[in-house]
Amino acid sequence: MKTPLILVTNDDGVYSPGLRALHEAVSSLGTAVIVAPDRDNSAVSHALTMNRPLRVTQLAEQTYSVDGTPTDCVTIAINKILPRKPDLLVSGINPGANLGDDISYSGTVSAAIEGTMYDIPSLAFSLASQPPYDFEVTAAVAWKLASMALSMHLPPSSLLNINMPPLSAGEIQGIRFTRQGRRLYRDAIQETFDPWGRKHYWIGGGTVHWYGGEDTDEQAVRNGFISVTPIQLDLTNHEGLAYLERQWKM
Amino acid sequence: MKTPLILVTNDDGVYSPGLRALHEAVSSLGTAVIVAPDRDNSAVSHALTMNRPLRVTQLAEQTYSVDGTPTDCVTIAINKILPRKPDLLVSGINPGANLGDDISYSGTVSAAIEGTMYDIPSLAFSLASQPPYDFEVTAAVAWKLASMALSMHLPPSSLLNINMPPLSAGEIQGIRFTRQGRRLYRDAIQETFDPWGRKHYWIGGGTVHWYGGEDTDEQAVRNGFISVTPIQLDLTNHEGLAYLERQWKM
Repeated sequence: MKTPLILVTNDDGVYSPGLRALHEAVSSLGTAVIVAPDRDNSAVSHALTMNRPLRVTQLAEQTYSVDGTPTDCVTIAINKILPRKPDLLVSGINPGANLGDDISYSGTVSAAIEGTMYDIPSLAFSLASQPPYDFEVTAAVAWKLASMALSMHLPPSSLLNINMPPLSAGEIQGIRFTRQGRRLYRDAIQETFDPWGRKHYWIGGGTVHWYGGEDTDEQAVRNGFISVTPIQLDLTNHEGLAYLERQWKM
Repeated sequence: MKTPLILVTNDDGVYSPGLRALHEAVSSLGTAVIVAPDRDNSAVSHALTMNRPLRVTQLAEQTYSVDGTPTDCVTIAINKILPRKPDLLVSGINPGANLGDDISYSGTVSAAIEGTMYDIPSLAFSLASQPPYDFEVTAAVAWKLASMALSMHLPPSSLLNINMPPLSAGEIQGIRFTRQGRRLYRDAIQETFDPWGRKHYWIGGGTVHWYGGEDTDEQAVRNGFISVTPIQLDLTNHEGLAYLERQWKM
C-alpha cells in the first residue's frame, strides 16, 4: 500500500498553533503537507480570490503559505503544489467552535468543503474552548478520526465537521454523530466611533441563542461529547422542491 | 395591510446596474431599501467582517452603502438601518450565473442565506449571460417572483436561487423548479509572473464540466428555462448520519 498523502490547512494562518498540532498528529499516518493562508482568515467562509494572482511561498520541506483564503489554499494545493490528489484533507484545529449556523461563515469548514468538491475525504476540526487553547486532546482525537477516514468511507459528497468539548481526555463523554443546530444572534453588532466622531458598526458579541434539540452538534459539545456532523455539498431543499412544484403555479 | 418593506442588496456593489434594475422592479411592491457593498465583492461567499468596524454611508433617501461584504450589509441593514424586519430580501441581479457548486462561493446567494437566517423570505437573482448584460427581462421576472414571495410561503429555512437564461421574453421556455447541479473545474488556475519573474497563480478560466442530470439548475438554464432552486440552511447529510452511526464504531 502506498503512503497516504495528507493535505493540512486551516483558516487562522500557517503559523497557528492549532495547525501545527494537527500536522504533528497526522504526520504518523502518511506524508502530511501544509498549505495554509499566510495570515488570519477567520470568517472568510468559502471566499475564492479571483481578482488578483496569488503567491505561494515554501516555508519548509512540506510547508507552504498562500496569500489568499483557505479555499484558495486547497485548490492551489491540489492543482499546483501536491504531486497527486491527496488521500485526505484535514483543516484546523480552529481555536473556537464551528457549530450550527456558524458553519456557513467558517473558513475552517470551507476548506473541507473545497476538498469534498474534489472528492477528497475531508475533516474539519474545532476546539470549542476559550483562550488559552490546549490542542493536545483534540490532536489525539484528530489522529484517531483521520486514521479512520483513511480506511472507512465518508458519506458521499460530504465532509465531517468535528467539534471538541473543552475537556481533558478523561472528562470527555464519548463521541456523538450529530446534525447541525440553529444559532440565533441578537444585537450582535456594537456601535463605535472613529476619531472624527463618525458612527461605525462592529459585528460581534451579543447574546447567543441556540435551538434545535438534543441531537444537534451544539448540544453534544455542551454535554461533553465530541460532535461529528456530516455536512453535504448539496444545498437543495428536496422537500421544498416538491412543495414549490405543487403550490407555486406560475 | 401595511406596505411591504423590501431589502435590496447584491455582491457587485451599490453602483451595479443589476442592483438598480432589481430595485426599480420591486419598488412598485413596497418600500424598497438598498443596503449594498461600496465595491465589488464577487466570490466572497458568506464572509463576515469581524476584525474591523464597518461604516455605513447614506447615498440617497433609501440607499445605503457599507464598506463590507454582502453578509455584513444584510446583518447591519436588519439590525441597524431598517425600521423593522423586512418582509422580503432580494439579492442581485448578478451579471453571470450562480449554478451548482458555484452557489457556495457566491456573494449574491450568501446575502440571501443571511436573510434566511433571520427568517426573511429571500430571493437571489442571477442572469446566466455574457457581457453586455441586459437586465430588463430578469427584472420583470424578479417583480413576478418577488410579488409571489410576498403572498406565498417559501419552503422552511430556505431561500430561492433564481437563474435566468440569456434569452428574450418570447424565447424563454418557462420556469422550472430545480435541484442544485454539480460543477467540476479542471485546470482552472493560470500561471503568471510578477515583474521580478516570480511565479503566481490566478484562479479562473479552465474548462467547466457539468453533471447531475436533467432536473438540475444548470440543465434548466441551458434548455432556456428560468431555474428556481430552493436552497436550505441545514447542511446536514441526514442519510450520512445514519450510515456513520451504523458503520463508524469508535
